[in-house]
Amino acid sequence: MKSTSLSTKLLINGDRLNQTIAGLAQIGKLPNGGVKRIAYSQKDIAARNLVQNWMQEAGMTIKIDAAGNIIGKYPGKYPDAPALATGSHIDTVPCGGHYDGAYGVLAGIEIARVFRENHIFLNYSFEVIVFTDEEGSMIGSKAISGRVVNDPNYYRRTDGTDICSCLEKIGGNWHNIAQAKRSRQDIAIFVELHVEQGPILESMGKQIGVVEGIVGQRRFNITVKGSANHAGTTPMHMRQDALVAAAKVVLAVNQIANTSPGQQVATVGKLQLQPNAANVVPGWVEMSLDIRDLSSLHIDSLLQQLRLHLEEIAVETNTQICLNPALHNKPALAEPYIQKVIAQVCEDLQLSYTYLPSRASHDAQELAQVTDMGMIFVPSKLGVSHSASEYTSPEQCIDGANVLLQTILRLGDFQQSLYPPSSKVF
Amino acid sequence: MKSTSLSTKLLINGDRLNQTIAGLAQIGKLPNGGVKRIAYSQKDIAARNLVQNWMQEAGMTIKIDAAGNIIGKYPGKYPDAPALATGSHIDTVPCGGHYDGAYGVLAGIEIARVFRENHIFLNYSFEVIVFTDEEGSMIGSKAISGRVVNDPNYYRRTDGTDICSCLEKIGGNWHNIAQAKRSRQDIAIFVELHVEQGPILESMGKQIGVVEGIVGQRRFNITVKGSANHAGTTPMHMRQDALVAAAKVVLAVNQIANTSPGQQVATVGKLQLQPNAANVVPGWVEMSLDIRDLSSLHIDSLLQQLRLHLEEIAVETNTQICLNPALHNKPALAEPYIQKVIAQVCEDLQLSYTYLPSRASHDAQELAQVTDMGMIFVPSKLGVSHSASEYTSPEQCIDGANVLLQTILRLGDFQQSLYPPSSKVF
Repeated sequence: MKSTSLSTKLLINGDRLNQTIAGLAQIGKLPNGGVKRIAYSQKDIAARNLVQNWMQEAGMTIKIDAAGNIIGKYPGKYPDAPALATGSHIDTVPCGGHYDGAYGVLAGIEIARVFRENHIFLNYSFEVIVFTDEEGSMIGSKAISGRVVNDPNYYRRTDGTDICSCLEKIGGNWHNIAQAKRSRQDIAIFVELHVEQGPILESMGKQIGVVEGIVGQRRFNITVKGSANHAGTTPMHMRQDALVAAAKVVLAVNQIANTSPGQQVATVGKLQLQPNAANVVPGWVEMSLDIRDLSSLHIDSLLQQLRLHLEEIAVETNTQICLNPALHNKPALAEPYIQKVIAQVCEDLQLSYTYLPSRASHDAQELAQVTDMGMIFVPSKLGVSHSASEYTSPEQCIDGANVLLQTILRLGDFQQSLYPPSSKVF
Repeated sequence: MKSTSLSTKLLINGDRLNQTIAGLAQIGKLPNGGVKRIAYSQKDIAARNLVQNWMQEAGMTIKIDAAGNIIGKYPGKYPDAPALATGSHIDTVPCGGHYDGAYGVLAGIEIARVFRENHIFLNYSFEVIVFTDEEGSMIGSKAISGRVVNDPNYYRRTDGTDICSCLEKIGGNWHNIAQAKRSRQDIAIFVELHVEQGPILESMGKQIGVVEGIVGQRRFNITVKGSANHAGTTPMHMRQDALVAAAKVVLAVNQIANTSPGQQVATVGKLQLQPNAANVVPGWVEMSLDIRDLSSLHIDSLLQQLRLHLEEIAVETNTQICLNPALHNKPALAEPYIQKVIAQVCEDLQLSYTYLPSRASHDAQELAQVTDMGMIFVPSKLGVSHSASEYTSPEQCIDGANVLLQTILRLGDFQQSLYPPSSKVF
């Protein structure tokens, strides 16, 4: 597992990396310092053009696939070899920051520059992928995993815009989207570098996060049916107050997530009541439940506990409570061998690290459907993201990019014996 | 206290009363059997005309005051004597029933008919008042108590209509509204007959409710400030979840109202959160609190208990919780001597009865500001009102009207010695 032919002394150019981060953040810059670069917007297209220029300058050839993903390719030793890929996204939420997504893309391009300057050619080709619309539909990475829903209406934008015209604007083509699918045969490994978007690394004082996987996520709608009644004339003991029942559900969810062993999170983030008037006992509540953990079995067990609570609460409050599934994303585990390489790189570079799950979604979770996946996190100040105040320091950005560089070098080296392809089907 | 000169055998004409209830319910009748007679609407005006016809037929003279209140007057023995008044309202909520308000007005008119048929003249004059817009602003009874807000914009209708033109349509005059104020000198006693709009009489199997008073009502906005955060990446122990805190508040309110001795009710009927998204830990919650009881001191003590809970919850959940007053209606107590007369009438008529507070608002609460007030309740099926399914049986309507008739006869008699006015300032 130790690095062999390629030196751990090889480093990215930190100033250059941070200049490109600052430069890209100029496109869509908001008065409050944040960035607005919604997928398919003028600003997104401007950013895509800038990134393509930088890829070309770094010696990469560029292909836009049917999903509009930008695939920058730096050649390897063997022209037909599969890719060792990295990448992320450059679209943002309506008020995003400088780092979420952009950092991973720009670190990838910086690595290509380092390869070019040092005449490094891996056994694999090296790809940097800019995935389309990560902050919205994740259509880019889903097209690569072959999991796009076969219905253009599903991808209609909230402003009513059609997905066909959106993809056309960025060089994609909805009708050929199935052709964007990749396989282990052409992406051997995918490693994504990203800001944590959570507070764990900062609170632990660690420089690097070795991601164990992207948590599975289940979402439910919980409905509580009570009986709306006059808040003045209905005595306490005759009420069927849907909000009282809902409050007990919120606390049961919180208690289960807080007291069960493990790192699960569970949230009621959305709640609406009817008739929602100060002088009426609430008759109906609808709320969301979001549970995330790396283990599907563990989520099952938490849900089983919750179901018992819901039954008790329904009896206690004389209401009917239903738990209706709304979303089921399975966990996407990072390959243990990739985690080990990342950890070893951290030790060699004398960077502190910890293993942790990613509790946010990333393009990497889709790539894990078709190939071996790994992820590297750097700290986010106060855990904040999707905000103008999202911040990762220049030094932290440099550290993460160096870990990605070394990880890619070693994964190339580590699997050297497995190539040329005649020796193994990837 | 026993009835003296006027016989307990004197009864209202039950069929005639129930025919007028059914007749009035034709105006604004909805396909579902409910009634829509919003104040100032065409239907309201048609109902007002019909009621005035019935008043005239019953030998009453009619005056419309500046607030549009219809005041039907049946003469007493002394032309300048103050009135012994009853009344209620004939406007409805958008989907109301046949009884709320209308019953009290029509029972009053039926009593005038009985007086006329039996050549009965009280020491007092007898008034039946139809109060304007009880279901909305209560401007009619508030004008009589002199508590109208001196700003026409305060009374602007939700559809934007101006109060001046509303009052003009029904024969009132906003500019003279102060002249509608009455005093103990011209209304000596006011007794309102109304359906309970709650389930207590039915659940106790009682025929008549002797109202102890109309509860005081305090309303608050409670705000909870937490910190909005990513529902995936924010570990449980680092959250400041405003909804978890709000859920604890909802349960604290419910527990205090359920376990404190007394008949108080307390309700969180309205709750809104921000950002209200399934994948975001709620950062802000705003909710209503409504507390009602006959005793202001008891409400104070409940609020004191709640404040202690709020402080504890804020600490536990790392949130800020504020309790902001929004409404303060003091209790309006029924005069004990009127309650005693009503109870005695029930015993003489062999009707079962109980004392109970009114937890809904009524015009009587305004009349209590200027004179001696009493209220009589009859049962509401399942406690339902403000609904097409509001129901009080013909027999129950007859019982209540007979209790009102006898109560008025006895109050006239009871205070006989107090009149002519030279002997007492009323």
